[in-house]
Amino acid sequence: MLITSLQNPAIKNVVKLSKSRERKEQQLFVIEGARELSLALQSDYRIDAVYVCREMFEKTKYPDVLNSLPENIIFEIAPLVFEKIAYRENSDGLVALAKPKLHTLNDLRLSENPFVIILESVEKPGNLGAILRTADAAAVDAVIICDPQTDLYNPNVIRSSVGGIFTVQTAVCSSNEAVVWLEANKITSFAAELQAAEFYQNIDFTQPSAIVMGTEAEGLTDFWLKNAKKRIKIPMRGKIDSLNVSVSTAVLTFEAMRQREG
Amino acid sequence: MLITSLQNPAIKNVVKLSKSRERKEQQLFVIEGARELSLALQSDYRIDAVYVCREMFEKTKYPDVLNSLPENIIFEIAPLVFEKIAYRENSDGLVALAKPKLHTLNDLRLSENPFVIILESVEKPGNLGAILRTADAAAVDAVIICDPQTDLYNPNVIRSSVGGIFTVQTAVCSSNEAVVWLEANKITSFAAELQAAEFYQNIDFTQPSAIVMGTEAEGLTDFWLKNAKKRIKIPMRGKIDSLNVSVSTAVLTFEAMRQREG
Repeated sequence: MLITSLQNPAIKNVVKLSKSRERKEQQLFVIEGARELSLALQSDYRIDAVYVCREMFEKTKYPDVLNSLPENIIFEIAPLVFEKIAYRENSDGLVALAKPKLHTLNDLRLSENPFVIILESVEKPGNLGAILRTADAAAVDAVIICDPQTDLYNPNVIRSSVGGIFTVQTAVCSSNEAVVWLEANKITSFAAELQAAEFYQNIDFTQPSAIVMGTEAEGLTDFWLKNAKKRIKIPMRGKIDSLNVSVSTAVLTFEAMRQREG
Repeated sequence: MLITSLQNPAIKNVVKLSKSRERKEQQLFVIEGARELSLALQSDYRIDAVYVCREMFEKTKYPDVLNSLPENIIFEIAPLVFEKIAYRENSDGLVALAKPKLHTLNDLRLSENPFVIILESVEKPGNLGAILRTADAAAVDAVIICDPQTDLYNPNVIRSSVGGIFTVQTAVCSSNEAVVWLEANKITSFAAELQAAEFYQNIDFTQPSAIVMGTEAEGLTDFWLKNAKKRIKIPMRGKIDSLNVSVSTAVLTFEAMRQREG
């Protein structure tokens, strides 16, 4: 059956799930895009429903994404209905509802020589998403999000992560828990700070390492400046005194990867 | 005199200038923020008018920005009027009109051992702005924008550049002109491409160099793949096959700077 009405309760609920509070209460979030759904499935996310607009889905590069899903959770929707629930431009006609994961520190599985990104109080969904995309490309062990001010399943996080939210191991916890976890796992932490004495290029990242990044507006709190093992900085050679946090995270992360390749 | 009416013709014109066509016709663009205006002044941009909302400007970190400006181009505006012309959240109550520069290749002044960023057909203002911010931090010689699909003075470019648009030398030209210019200046060009054979970490950026970046959607055109001296890539170790273009530009640029510091 084709859903054609914007008054359909299921459709109205998809719209509701753009709100963080609703996502928390219902324990559901929205995935837009066939590629993103395919990455979520590969990472064993539980999918509750898929809404497909056939006219648009014909153009997708991931036509097989529906094959592994039970038919009774796939609903066809009219273009007008898709427009109502779609979040992006140039979408490929698919919106799914999925169940969040728990993202506990204990669930993280580390390699022998882990490299971890820690974000304190990250604010902007776009930055968090961009960092998850970078974390995927660099194949870091995990991204740990301390005291977040944005919800991991915010549609903007998912969109700007291009699916990295599903492919990268992530944990959400307090800064204190993260420090305890770092010690238990013998990981050396490097706090990125504009006033630091040491340049990142001179740091040895070949041992188990974590970089700790603060917000763009405020930087890291005293807690992390005290509890990280070392403070490091990227040289600022221009007139502006800071980089975008997703850019500085990428610069540090790819330098670590470069060193590790030997 | 305090401007309190949204019908004031000057105020209506500021709103108009959010459109690219109007900016071109009037040869004027909008700068929001005292920090940005201060950077524009340092780079000798000609300022035609400044609109200040005193209630908000009291909180600015750049109170001296108005000192060097003639009084007859400074206009006070009511909070309601500022709200109408402001583009951002958390603004510090200042909007200025400035005259664009020409951005010709011939005006670029290069160091002895230049490093240049070339962007082909960059689409998203946010990405262009982010790259200009990175270019400032890395103190590259210039950013050359070939066949752009976005206007350099788009408010989103200015905002996301955090003023880098004013501090970084930029030229706008055709791809063909850029290739001729590179040869004339004996600069080796490296085209970033996902299919390239060589990894960026193994490239010598210590000589006069330019990196050439394509759009996120399409990558570089054949023109650049043929005309650049070498093709290079950043290793993709995850499940997603690309990085954000501002992130990959930063990774390549900071690797070049790292090498040059010796």
